[in-house]
Amino acid sequence: MLTAVRSPRRTRDVQVAATRATILDTAERLFAEHGVATVSNRQISEAAGQGNNAAVGYHFGTRSELIRAIIRRHAAPMEEIRRGLFDRYRESAELRDVVTCVVCPYTQHLAALGAPSWYARFAAQVITEPGLRQLAGDVLRDAPVLFAVSEALHRLLPHLTPEVCREREDMAHTLIVHFCAQRERSAQPRWAATATSLLDAVEGLLRAPMNSR
Amino acid sequence: MLTAVRSPRRTRDVQVAATRATILDTAERLFAEHGVATVSNRQISEAAGQGNNAAVGYHFGTRSELIRAIIRRHAAPMEEIRRGLFDRYRESAELRDVVTCVVCPYTQHLAALGAPSWYARFAAQVITEPGLRQLAGDVLRDAPVLFAVSEALHRLLPHLTPEVCREREDMAHTLIVHFCAQRERSAQPRWAATATSLLDAVEGLLRAPMNSR
Repeated sequence: MLTAVRSPRRTRDVQVAATRATILDTAERLFAEHGVATVSNRQISEAAGQGNNAAVGYHFGTRSELIRAIIRRHAAPMEEIRRGLFDRYRESAELRDVVTCVVCPYTQHLAALGAPSWYARFAAQVITEPGLRQLAGDVLRDAPVLFAVSEALHRLLPHLTPEVCREREDMAHTLIVHFCAQRERSAQPRWAATATSLLDAVEGLLRAPMNSR
Repeated sequence: MLTAVRSPRRTRDVQVAATRATILDTAERLFAEHGVATVSNRQISEAAGQGNNAAVGYHFGTRSELIRAIIRRHAAPMEEIRRGLFDRYRESAELRDVVTCVVCPYTQHLAALGAPSWYARFAAQVITEPGLRQLAGDVLRDAPVLFAVSEALHRLLPHLTPEVCREREDMAHTLIVHFCAQRERSAQPRWAATATSLLDAVEGLLRAPMNSR
């Protein structure tokens, strides 16, 4: 039967997809280990076993596109985890439930990647470096649940002004990403325990009154 | 009078101290802007206006010594601020008072540096990179008030196990340093407002019960 035979074009598409995935894996690992700023496209191409040192450019165009592609391939499964949690907690009046939708997409995604993973250390650089953060912002516009969770959070924190609420939310993300990056560096990240630690801390951080003295 | 005349040796010491200070200023700025890992000693020597491209090596020996020298020149004034605050709050049973001794050495030191400053972004790298963090550990062994504040904090948090207490303290430092680095990047860091935001958030983070569900 004709449909059982792969066309040359389809074979080539599969090969291209495999090469792209290898380049993304390699770039993510090198970025995590050495820092995005210190790793060249040429080093990535070489470490990915590409005969052609311009492979990154050929497959991804610009450096920004490569970084966006790494962000995107983690943002999508995290948004799916978030959607599952938020479907369950959408109507909850418990802050802990909404905080779960903030913390657990990270820790559950990292657990699913298996050890060793590199994403948390990459994400820590993305949240820290203004240039990288802007690239992430472009990608995250496609994450509607992320924004819905943020709105739910604001509704449950009426003791904070909108400005302070945004600030606390930003602090929570800073804490989550950097704490996960620290854990990822250890031999035993223990993501379930990491989630519990973060849920407690983030809930406390958000509940804190304004200028309580 | 003989004592009013600078000896050649004393003049040379003053020149050496000025050159060292220029190199430290330059290294700190370049590290903050581009990342410790991407800046070479040669680039620092050149940007510091040293004719000799080996000036960093000549004045500081190893790369680690240069980094330790930057850490040390901020650790000392921060420890003095901490000492002043802790002298006042040592006997306090108010968590807020001890949290003040954790947060305000950073924000008051950064305010004293004036804008633009580079230290917070440098410190964010030090707290993040395991290799740099170890160098800081070596320097901070000379900060007895830092340890006394930590002990006072643990006494005021009996609802946490020692392990979780250390973890929360680590989270607090992570949050303080990265939040200050973010603020430092902005044109108007507003350190007094930054301190208030951090005092509220850190107090909440520390007060949070363990595994509260």
